[in-house]
Amino acid sequence: MTPSPHPATPTLSDLSPEARGLLETQTIELPSWAFGNSGTRFRVFTTAGVPRDPYEKIDDVAEVNRLTGVTPRISLHIPWDRTDDYDALRRHAEDQGISIGTINSNVFQDEDYKLGSLCNPDERIRAKAIAHHLECIDIMRATGSPALKIWLADGTNYPGQDSIRERQDRLADSLAQIYAALDEDQQLVLEYKFFEPAFYHTDVPDWGTSLVHCLALGERAKVVLDTGHHAPGTNIEFIVAQLVRLGRLGAFDFNSRFYADDDLIVGAADPFQLFRIMNEIVAAGALAPDSGVNFMLDQCHNLEEKIPGEIRSATNVQEATAKALLVDREALKAAQTAGDVLAANDVFVDAFSTDVRPLLAELRESRGLAPDPMRAFLDSGYLERIRAERVGGNAAGWGA
Amino acid sequence: MTPSPHPATPTLSDLSPEARGLLETQTIELPSWAFGNSGTRFRVFTTAGVPRDPYEKIDDVAEVNRLTGVTPRISLHIPWDRTDDYDALRRHAEDQGISIGTINSNVFQDEDYKLGSLCNPDERIRAKAIAHHLECIDIMRATGSPALKIWLADGTNYPGQDSIRERQDRLADSLAQIYAALDEDQQLVLEYKFFEPAFYHTDVPDWGTSLVHCLALGERAKVVLDTGHHAPGTNIEFIVAQLVRLGRLGAFDFNSRFYADDDLIVGAADPFQLFRIMNEIVAAGALAPDSGVNFMLDQCHNLEEKIPGEIRSATNVQEATAKALLVDREALKAAQTAGDVLAANDVFVDAFSTDVRPLLAELRESRGLAPDPMRAFLDSGYLERIRAERVGGNAAGWGA
Amino acid sequence: MTPSPHPATPTLSDLSPEARGLLETQTIELPSWAFGNSGTRFRVFTTAGVPRDPYEKIDDVAEVNRLTGVTPRISLHIPWDRTDDYDALRRHAEDQGISIGTINSNVFQDEDYKLGSLCNPDERIRAKAIAHHLECIDIMRATGSPALKIWLADGTNYPGQDSIRERQDRLADSLAQIYAALDEDQQLVLEYKFFEPAFYHTDVPDWGTSLVHCLALGERAKVVLDTGHHAPGTNIEFIVAQLVRLGRLGAFDFNSRFYADDDLIVGAADPFQLFRIMNEIVAAGALAPDSGVNFMLDQCHNLEEKIPGEIRSATNVQEATAKALLVDREALKAAQTAGDVLAANDVFVDAFSTDVRPLLAELRESRGLAPDPMRAFLDSGYLERIRAERVGGNAAGWGA
Amino acid sequence: MTPSPHPATPTLSDLSPEARGLLETQTIELPSWAFGNSGTRFRVFTTAGVPRDPYEKIDDVAEVNRLTGVTPRISLHIPWDRTDDYDALRRHAEDQGISIGTINSNVFQDEDYKLGSLCNPDERIRAKAIAHHLECIDIMRATGSPALKIWLADGTNYPGQDSIRERQDRLADSLAQIYAALDEDQQLVLEYKFFEPAFYHTDVPDWGTSLVHCLALGERAKVVLDTGHHAPGTNIEFIVAQLVRLGRLGAFDFNSRFYADDDLIVGAADPFQLFRIMNEIVAAGALAPDSGVNFMLDQCHNLEEKIPGEIRSATNVQEATAKALLVDREALKAAQTAGDVLAANDVFVDAFSTDVRPLLAELRESRGLAPDPMRAFLDSGYLERIRAERVGGNAAGWGA
Repeated sequence: MTPSPHPATPTLSDLSPEARGLLETQTIELPSWAFGNSGTRFRVFTTAGVPRDPYEKIDDVAEVNRLTGVTPRISLHIPWDRTDDYDALRRHAEDQGISIGTINSNVFQDEDYKLGSLCNPDERIRAKAIAHHLECIDIMRATGSPALKIWLADGTNYPGQDSIRERQDRLADSLAQIYAALDEDQQLVLEYKFFEPAFYHTDVPDWGTSLVHCLALGERAKVVLDTGHHAPGTNIEFIVAQLVRLGRLGAFDFNSRFYADDDLIVGAADPFQLFRIMNEIVAAGALAPDSGVNFMLDQCHNLEEKIPGEIRSATNVQEATAKALLVDREALKAAQTAGDVLAANDVFVDAFSTDVRPLLAELRESRGLAPDPMRAFLDSGYLERIRAERVGGNAAGWGA
Repeated sequence: MTPSPHPATPTLSDLSPEARGLLETQTIELPSWAFGNSGTRFRVFTTAGVPRDPYEKIDDVAEVNRLTGVTPRISLHIPWDRTDDYDALRRHAEDQGISIGTINSNVFQDEDYKLGSLCNPDERIRAKAIAHHLECIDIMRATGSPALKIWLADGTNYPGQDSIRERQDRLADSLAQIYAALDEDQQLVLEYKFFEPAFYHTDVPDWGTSLVHCLALGERAKVVLDTGHHAPGTNIEFIVAQLVRLGRLGAFDFNSRFYADDDLIVGAADPFQLFRIMNEIVAAGALAPDSGVNFMLDQCHNLEEKIPGEIRSATNVQEATAKALLVDREALKAAQTAGDVLAANDVFVDAFSTDVRPLLAELRESRGLAPDPMRAFLDSGYLERIRAERVGGNAAGWGA
Repeated sequence: MTPSPHPATPTLSDLSPEARGLLETQTIELPSWAFGNSGTRFRVFTTAGVPRDPYEKIDDVAEVNRLTGVTPRISLHIPWDRTDDYDALRRHAEDQGISIGTINSNVFQDEDYKLGSLCNPDERIRAKAIAHHLECIDIMRATGSPALKIWLADGTNYPGQDSIRERQDRLADSLAQIYAALDEDQQLVLEYKFFEPAFYHTDVPDWGTSLVHCLALGERAKVVLDTGHHAPGTNIEFIVAQLVRLGRLGAFDFNSRFYADDDLIVGAADPFQLFRIMNEIVAAGALAPDSGVNFMLDQCHNLEEKIPGEIRSATNVQEATAKALLVDREALKAAQTAGDVLAANDVFVDAFSTDVRPLLAELRESRGLAPDPMRAFLDSGYLERIRAERVGGNAAGWGA
Repeated sequence: MTPSPHPATPTLSDLSPEARGLLETQTIELPSWAFGNSGTRFRVFTTAGVPRDPYEKIDDVAEVNRLTGVTPRISLHIPWDRTDDYDALRRHAEDQGISIGTINSNVFQDEDYKLGSLCNPDERIRAKAIAHHLECIDIMRATGSPALKIWLADGTNYPGQDSIRERQDRLADSLAQIYAALDEDQQLVLEYKFFEPAFYHTDVPDWGTSLVHCLALGERAKVVLDTGHHAPGTNIEFIVAQLVRLGRLGAFDFNSRFYADDDLIVGAADPFQLFRIMNEIVAAGALAPDSGVNFMLDQCHNLEEKIPGEIRSATNVQEATAKALLVDREALKAAQTAGDVLAANDVFVDAFSTDVRPLLAELRESRGLAPDPMRAFLDSGYLERIRAERVGGNAAGWGA
């Protein structure tokens, strides 16, 4: 058994050039809807200063990016972010150094979708849902978005309500029509979810189902892993490792949860799990910008301030990444090969136990950023300004 | 090992007079809100013919009672069922053979309650929440309701957000003030819930916590067991047996679930579990009307028709009860005493495997009711009538 | 909404000829180890009359088959059922109308396998584990077994203990060597398990992983679904439907569970779930003997008598199957197409609520069997005889 | 929103004198059985150098205490640690600075206990189980142990197997007889467990049940919280806070788990959870030696070396404690009072993110200990010595 080295607070110079490069080029895509109001079925509480349209959402993403330096993209959600001039929207983003990331479809908020969308027993409704995705693909073209993300609320609440098997066949058929409409440089990423809002069965409940459909579609179809969409006790880093191994991990929807799909700030519930996930990414060489894995957030700031919530999320992912980059892989490999269970775990945990906040502060300062983005934001007056300015109109939320 | 007797379809005459009497006098209280629209955080789908006010909700409860003969009470929810003349509301109910059952408070839908109600760190907000309960107690007096049901959304989403310990102390203090305002013939029942809408911690998460507060309050404080409010794998019939043993089971909120608090039709997800629960009730002699246990439903018919959903729920509870009454307790006791694991289980399961629907049809006919309440309802034209009549106005839902 | 038909106790004549044929030809393979002692990490309690060798296990399987008429195969477990003359063992079985079914390998009880078998970091140990499987393939040839079942205890207990990713690659390589050794008429079925005995990660934790490896191996590699090997809340019938759809469901390991992998009598914990599972099988036409799905039990009778436990298990599967065959598929389809949630559920549940025990008694009598196999067994004196005869020697268990 | 202070690596001087004092006087009791072999139902792997008797177990505990300075007590397990001269055993411990802590009874490994012990339907067996506890009380007197710990494997595997309700009554009666036999300075602590080895119901499944029995017994009966004995998703720190509030938290059985009762090294699965638990202890003033809460380990080192496993466990608890002592309670209170969700969480997480290993190294050196106990142990030659010396005899395990 080889003990871990004495703990110390590492600095940037303790990172290899490659590791430092990875940390410097890491990016995290922010979801437009995280800046609007959200809640539970019991209540959506309101927050002052919430954006009223996608332009203001972009402003907030740009603010987070100015402070953290790692969030240069925004995910849009259609129809919540529908606008009549996507070109203008794109320019508004680019003017602030932001690009349009993934386009998220929404086929769960129309009365027609009560019993499903792409899996609905009614062909007319499936066609409507497919058409919505074709609209999303048009928006991708208009905004330069590289990926269409499909999350479906499809499922049933009662055994017998519909045929599980036939719904799979309908899903395969609907997805094929959507995939066929994509351009060569566009990607489809298919999200899975264990339950909610369907309570008896979900049509894409697990990574296996998502993968099976992606394999049937083609190489530009990949799986989205939302960290909150699993059964209790599921080992998420295993799924990460498996999907990376198969070349089919398209994207993360980061968030955290204690029970169900709580959509809390990523890393807030179980920072060690986030570290283990990022470790699989780093170990597999999947952190690099060209690895094909898009790191996105998908969160709901029901009680806390939204912009600070996103800042904290971005720094949490950075911290977990920095720790993963600090794992002494040579020592780890040696202990694993020797079958020394505790020594291997010690090497692994040693990186997690390390405080990387000073290192990240140093990294930010080296890039001309404030060392503490949260502090900088709170001192900036931005919050006070939007609270004063964003009065009247409809505060953004899930319904609009 | 003693095998179970040959299966057969039992008739009313196979029941002891006592068992028959229990089945004939069983009642199930219906929640007013089950007749309004409900949904998930993703969407509330609408249903034609939904009530617009508490009067119409009472009409629907009365209709279910006319058909099933077992639902003579309605739970009200304040403020959703607020009206300016509770005496008129009560008469409207009584005219149709319905009494006002439990009054449910609501301290989770006002902006003030964002961080809690009876546990809120802000004394002003706690006082406001207490005052709301005093209003509910007044409504109890006006409507003849015997019980105040408290379910709290209180909790936190993030570790450190508030002090778990201090919130308990505030809760105890708030509850004491409410309890002190009750009349001698009024009861307080305190519901617990594992999670949702709070995601990190819930202030009354389990039966132990509810019991501890009830013990501190006094004899007229009892625990409400909502069948959907437990961690995965929790043995609910154990809790039933324990609370009955302690004389502190005040009421059931029946529903069923596959994952979280799905609020599906009771018995829909796991009919064997419902049977096991009713078995503990029957075995402990807690089924009788004067046993002090109030059998209530608390469900959400998000996708299915609401009135049929309530009819099915009532008949599901009746079926589970009839099966529990059919358990051959002498044979069961003999097998248990002999330590014959399989024989005891066989006696138990034999009752569950029996089809009691003919027996219940016979019971209904003996009481002048249609043998199949669902069939009778669908043939009655009631649904068509309310769809035609209840047009305009605001369809009832959780927000109003 | 179409109501379900009036309930009644169906007889054989209520089944279509095809349904009756499926019920008559249904078979369930029994595991040799269910007849030996088993237990938990806390204690293995003993039972009188337990077999001492594979011959006596075959005798017990034959006895269950004589009584139920549906269990004509035995699964063997190597090394627990190792013998020096497999030809003699096979004849002993055939003389009693039993064939040798699946051969189960065991690479978890040798000190060498402490850190894994097919995934072990040590190449020598992987080679040893592969060699064990080659021995199993030889035993398949000697016994006429059509399938090799692989369940692995491989995994890790601590994060970092070994590389999740590299273990997958080793697994793929090991499996490929085993698969290559199979004859053309032999099949490999790969079981997955959520957790236990590994506590941090399991190398084949879910159906997705098992499928991915089967796809890489070839057409004669299929997935084994053990009903107890899932996370809490997992919708097992969905997985059944998906694997049947993909043509990759090789076998069931039936049992039931409340919490983890409890290995209780199938149908004992949630009979409605077993019905839903059999419904997917029936609906997909996968019940027929030539469907390629092998229905097996994998259970532990820790407290109850073993032979009665297997009889009950076989009749529980029969009951669930009969109910699934009674589902009115035309009415179900009509309700599903109409989007009538409750009517569809009603049709479905109507079959479950039906008491099919009389129908099955009739089926048995039509085949010259006693109507109640449990009763017949208890009256047969078999139990008393083996208790008297099987004295001395080593009672079979997991260790031998 | 108040941001957290700049991170830094704290030293001893950053602790208040009181906090430092608490850290210096913290103790953790070690379980004798953690030093013996353990495993799962699938296999107990062996480890060289494992103790053969309680004397050698004490030697190992003393070695851990020499290195960490925080483990001066050993829990014994009867009959695993039975000896014919407890006085000699006690002296052997005292000579090495170790005292005998809690006595653990065992009423789950005798054939008589197949269907339960204190809850068994057979009065003779209950009397036998009670008598075993009286023997344990005698051993407490002989060894100076202050507390009797009762964990029961009692429960059932199948619904109907026995009466849940009657078993509660038997339990209450059995416990009363045991409690009555205690001396005035002896305590009874009652452990609860969600499941395993019983699979359908457990007789003491949750803290509520344990509390209810303790309340019935008297003031010297308290609850043991084993961190691995809860349903998935249970908020353990809530239970800690509640039991401390009620004055009924008698002891911890520390370990960690991913799925069920994995009995892994405490802090290994979720270090943030361990921090949150210790935070409730610190916040409630329950860390002091005279607080009445006994901090014990209960772990199984199935794969890893046992002594290093215990060293790592002790240091993990120390680290979580040090972090809890570093929480800026004034800032936390201010943010909580202001209702600033993120700021409160930030203050809380700031302490967790801090690397306290240097501070603890400093603490050890100030007490004359090596800064890194693991390193010191590995360099000491102790492991090599016991591997050479402890040859022959029966290696300790759960069966002996």
